[in-house]
Amino acid sequence: MSEFSLIAKYFTRPAANADLGVGDDAALLRVQEGHQLAISVDMLVAGTHFYKDADPYTVGWKSMAVNISDMAAMGAAPKWATLAIALPKIDEDWLAEFARGLFACAERFNVSLIGGDTTHGPLNISVQIMGEVPTSQALVRASAQADDDIWVSGHLGSAALGLAHLQQKVSLPETALTHCLQRLHTPTPRVDLGLALRGIASSCIDVSDGLLADLGHILHNSKVGASIHLEQIACHDYLKNRLEQPLIQQCITAGGDDYELIFTAPRSKRDVINTLSGQLNLPLSLIGAVTAEQTLQVQYQARNLNIARKGYDHFE
Amino acid sequence: MSEFSLIAKYFTRPAANADLGVGDDAALLRVQEGHQLAISVDMLVAGTHFYKDADPYTVGWKSMAVNISDMAAMGAAPKWATLAIALPKIDEDWLAEFARGLFACAERFNVSLIGGDTTHGPLNISVQIMGEVPTSQALVRASAQADDDIWVSGHLGSAALGLAHLQQKVSLPETALTHCLQRLHTPTPRVDLGLALRGIASSCIDVSDGLLADLGHILHNSKVGASIHLEQIACHDYLKNRLEQPLIQQCITAGGDDYELIFTAPRSKRDVINTLSGQLNLPLSLIGAVTAEQTLQVQYQARNLNIARKGYDHFE
Repeated sequence: MSEFSLIAKYFTRPAANADLGVGDDAALLRVQEGHQLAISVDMLVAGTHFYKDADPYTVGWKSMAVNISDMAAMGAAPKWATLAIALPKIDEDWLAEFARGLFACAERFNVSLIGGDTTHGPLNISVQIMGEVPTSQALVRASAQADDDIWVSGHLGSAALGLAHLQQKVSLPETALTHCLQRLHTPTPRVDLGLALRGIASSCIDVSDGLLADLGHILHNSKVGASIHLEQIACHDYLKNRLEQPLIQQCITAGGDDYELIFTAPRSKRDVINTLSGQLNLPLSLIGAVTAEQTLQVQYQARNLNIARKGYDHFE
Repeated sequence: MSEFSLIAKYFTRPAANADLGVGDDAALLRVQEGHQLAISVDMLVAGTHFYKDADPYTVGWKSMAVNISDMAAMGAAPKWATLAIALPKIDEDWLAEFARGLFACAERFNVSLIGGDTTHGPLNISVQIMGEVPTSQALVRASAQADDDIWVSGHLGSAALGLAHLQQKVSLPETALTHCLQRLHTPTPRVDLGLALRGIASSCIDVSDGLLADLGHILHNSKVGASIHLEQIACHDYLKNRLEQPLIQQCITAGGDDYELIFTAPRSKRDVINTLSGQLNLPLSLIGAVTAEQTLQVQYQARNLNIARKGYDHFE
């Protein structure tokens, strides 16, 4: 099978949103008037981001999902993606499952694959996502204000706990394990929430590296600090019942890979945010407040918690 | 050095063309009214596209140049790029030189680096390029017509001949070697030519995989054939004087990595194309004609040439 027949067989589907899709020197698309194009890229490497023998369906899903999550975090509607992939060899079973997972996630969120590159090398998947946001309405990191509330969506810590199980640092019972691995392998980007938060949130980011690391990006860019409460962070019962354990604390505050949204909003928005939580059927937890003092404190049982590692860094 | 300080130190420069550059969940840009966004991505892998000990400056230059070349081939003005890079380790000397080459090429062609991802893994560089083209004026592959002329810019075969020298298949004298390695390592995308060909060329592609393979893409998409003449292809004197050698024929017709433009145009455009050649100080060679019959023939000394391999395929 040649590079070109591989692309034709696995990665060419009609690109509903684009003027020209896979198969030319470049794809062509039009951005709606009055909108900005939002662009983000994430690279997933075998052995770094997933095990080399990982289920290819989930590798495909996650490669797309983590990128769509960046659109959610900007309040942008995801629309287009490109895929650059290096493959050590052509394994058609692997490719078919990878493509099935990638397109399942793309189609779930109305994203068209409009171009890419396929080459030979150690397994490496680079997806770039593009979306639209009405001009000046994007949810950026730099505009959190002192005294804003800090919110987080969904449950934190499950993905990291699933990884801890795979690394044999903990042994989970079956129901908790199923939940945690599903969160680790097929995360759900919070696109509807991101879109709904336009005009409500003062800043937003998704949890990819870990709550404290990602909240830290908002604080750094906004030149503010924060105080948050561990008990107020929604999490799965297995974690909730073991909050005193350092591993559990670490999973919740620094685990990453949850792809929930952290956002800040003025106190005046509490009612509208709580209503939104009901509408989206998604927990939205008020976990703390932005402070003028540029420090980041995590409280647990009315004491400051000392978190050894704030999040994932590929070179630390 | 952390992932984030690495990005800050080497890959963050003001993004003149964008509303928001490196450092948020996504970059934000605006596309000019009446324009389409053109998008392409190329992935370069150490050991596949360049030697692991290759000069990092040229790796940086080429990573950007091959992408900009795709914009040229679409008749699009390149404006924005993202970089996703996997690094086996942090080698600051390597990174500084890589970034210097990447930005030298980007700045030469007015491209802003607006986002990216840095991670750990076998060396892999994925650049995505974006540009603008007035709506419906892009130079696509599917619109070549029977009896159109076939043109190619610049000199073909030099990059492949340089590679053949590095692979010890040939031993070049110093002046030819210098020329060939410069073409191999720091190719010049033909942006000005691509822009000037709007409204003139009926189809266009850049020579990345090899003349016959890339022309083949035009023919396949346009459902036509071609007859071209080896002697009419401009090339460096070293090659010109050895046209009878199979290695030289192979370099010119199937070598790839030249990043010149192949384009088709109606016969009525000959004068304007020859004038353009003078204006751009760039050879534009009329090398053959599009045929209704869907075959691809290469003539040399009035006989059909049999080319063993038509171009580069990563999985053949």
